[in-house]
Amino acid sequence: MDIKNSIKQIAQKAQMASRQLSRISTGIKNDVLLKMAEALLEKSDFLIKENVKDLTRARETGLSAAMMDRLTIKEATIGAMAQGLREVAALPDPVGKVTSMWRRPNGLMVGRMRIPLGVIGIIYESRPNVTVDASALCLKAGNAVILRGGSEAINSNLAIASILQQVLSESPLPAEAVQVIPFTDRAGVSALLQMDEYIDLIIPRGGEELIRTVVAQSKIPVIKHYKGVCHIFVDKDADLDMAMNITFNAKVQRPGVCNALETLLAHKDIADEFLPRAAEKLQKAGVTIRGCEQTRKILKNIEAATEDDWYAEYLDLILAVKIVDDIGAAIAHIEKYGSLHTESIITRDYANAQRFLNEVNSSTVAVNASTRFSDGFELGLGAEIGISTTKLHAFGPMGLEELTTTKFIIYGNGQVRA
Amino acid sequence: MDIKNSIKQIAQKAQMASRQLSRISTGIKNDVLLKMAEALLEKSDFLIKENVKDLTRARETGLSAAMMDRLTIKEATIGAMAQGLREVAALPDPVGKVTSMWRRPNGLMVGRMRIPLGVIGIIYESRPNVTVDASALCLKAGNAVILRGGSEAINSNLAIASILQQVLSESPLPAEAVQVIPFTDRAGVSALLQMDEYIDLIIPRGGEELIRTVVAQSKIPVIKHYKGVCHIFVDKDADLDMAMNITFNAKVQRPGVCNALETLLAHKDIADEFLPRAAEKLQKAGVTIRGCEQTRKILKNIEAATEDDWYAEYLDLILAVKIVDDIGAAIAHIEKYGSLHTESIITRDYANAQRFLNEVNSSTVAVNASTRFSDGFELGLGAEIGISTTKLHAFGPMGLEELTTTKFIIYGNGQVRA
Repeated sequence: MDIKNSIKQIAQKAQMASRQLSRISTGIKNDVLLKMAEALLEKSDFLIKENVKDLTRARETGLSAAMMDRLTIKEATIGAMAQGLREVAALPDPVGKVTSMWRRPNGLMVGRMRIPLGVIGIIYESRPNVTVDASALCLKAGNAVILRGGSEAINSNLAIASILQQVLSESPLPAEAVQVIPFTDRAGVSALLQMDEYIDLIIPRGGEELIRTVVAQSKIPVIKHYKGVCHIFVDKDADLDMAMNITFNAKVQRPGVCNALETLLAHKDIADEFLPRAAEKLQKAGVTIRGCEQTRKILKNIEAATEDDWYAEYLDLILAVKIVDDIGAAIAHIEKYGSLHTESIITRDYANAQRFLNEVNSSTVAVNASTRFSDGFELGLGAEIGISTTKLHAFGPMGLEELTTTKFIIYGNGQVRA
Repeated sequence: MDIKNSIKQIAQKAQMASRQLSRISTGIKNDVLLKMAEALLEKSDFLIKENVKDLTRARETGLSAAMMDRLTIKEATIGAMAQGLREVAALPDPVGKVTSMWRRPNGLMVGRMRIPLGVIGIIYESRPNVTVDASALCLKAGNAVILRGGSEAINSNLAIASILQQVLSESPLPAEAVQVIPFTDRAGVSALLQMDEYIDLIIPRGGEELIRTVVAQSKIPVIKHYKGVCHIFVDKDADLDMAMNITFNAKVQRPGVCNALETLLAHKDIADEFLPRAAEKLQKAGVTIRGCEQTRKILKNIEAATEDDWYAEYLDLILAVKIVDDIGAAIAHIEKYGSLHTESIITRDYANAQRFLNEVNSSTVAVNASTRFSDGFELGLGAEIGISTTKLHAFGPMGLEELTTTKFIIYGNGQVRA
């Protein structure tokens, strides 16, 4: 059978499974998630053996040490996968929740009820733990999932899928609720992205290139996250110790992630006092600073920032610094150069705090807090399936609710339309 | 200048306008909507004169009487447009609404605030009133709008736009908040659909062919509504007078709309009693009935339904009728042949009512009510910009809230991530 037909069969089976899944009770879903956790632990020898096949091939093809590290499954990795499944089991089920209900003048009771999206396709790179995490979240929200991981992890991903499917086949849930695409040909991804008749949503997880490739090809809606150019604006009235502490945390604590700080905007009235202190602490931690012309009059030992720096997502220990006249200039800079991800103002001024929260339309906007809180777990969603930086359906970190939609329900007693 | 560049300029201006618009207060927006209503009434002579140009050309090209009717602007049409603007002004503003807020263990207060989507493109057919209605809804929700109506209405649409823009230019709102594409070349639509950098959402309003063309070309998310194959299931325990009344209303009151009834499913135990009575009343109103084999044993004078009939959106006085064994068979039929639009069960059985509401995942699911209530106004949304039959972002009738998204807002007092 050719790849296109094979993908079509997978997609059709997923749709059939999703219809069954939408009617499964929370208790049964949780039970299956807990059994999956047990099964992964029980079959850890098998999993590690299959993972070694991937690692051996990866070593031969010269995968980077960082990629090898992400690909490796150890006992502890499996323990974390199992723990993740248990945590998803413990989350409230979004399906069936009536988010609001109201009475119409004609007596109709109208409400909105959460229902699963249907079938979700996840396209991701080397970490095999995504296979478990994404499956758990999709299942809990009543969706069937089709997983397409990196070719370098194919044996690991198929091994995980076989364990999960074994549990499903011994449960009231359909075994096709979780499917891994069993071949690594890129034509498989292209074929998958044409299956808009069967698949409701595509979530790509990986670098900007992967995401742009998926968006360019997909006939199915895609939740996109291109990049995070996050800003902190230190206002005239900021508590400078707090500003220091938050800037340091946002830049240094984990510089390689999308919610790390990339550009610091400093109000001109505090720049002389704040920037030398901040620079000293940041530079001690290995941060390279690139500044605007005015910044370089205060910090003598730094590089000049070019226009490109204001657009840059460094994902590294580099920080762009710009001095601005006021909050209006800070908001205008964010509007021009930002990526709609996460921005924070540090201020003691009530009006400016409220203005920043209201006027900045990024997916997460904070007052006096680190940008690093823009994360499904940290915001209290209980989980995270990804972050959206486009506005349709979901904007910002996505939890279980974002894997559902709502239908209208109507309780009538014979009403007809006049 | 070529079409593509001209469209790009329109899209860029819309994005600039949308950023200003997102910060405009409700009071100012409402004031502008009310002034637009006055301006349309004041300039009704001009509007009717421009409309006559379209009507003259349409007569020459032999437009159908129905299309001519939809194209015509009379004093009463303008009165209705003005009234529509006043009603939108009276609706609550969704922008700035904090839909929920919670405290995290570290003291962060996290909430979700409604914000505009940004720029919305509307692609529609001949009715010029859409130009006013869509502009009003988009503006109220803080969005800039780009309108591309049918070529047969170009003079009318440009006249409406010039009146609305005149009001905008005398207000704090940007004049580019409402733009009509000033040329009718189809290349303009294609170019518009590539502007994903500037436009956040496309809403096509018209027939299935228009919508499929837009979806095939668009790089921008599209809210789709292909068709409405709506079902009523008359259960064994139905009040047959109520079933009669609702079936008649759903089929006959306005057969040409998407929420009209297309297929009637009758429980086998009530078919003998119900179908002859229903058929008599429906046939008297001019309805042609096409039935399954079993139905034709009860109703002798009807045509046979083919497989195609179960998929059909007649939009006409035709009804497909099928006898089913039980509620499970009814739900399975809807799942196989339905369009995810609107379905209703008529029953006195509590468990079956709840089962139908829970298990049928169409965008509107009703108990003991006409399918004709699947409409933004009837459901209490206050307005309707369209109906979505796909699940991403919005599912079912869409009001003002569906023209917004949410951002996360965080009130902190110095929190950093550990």
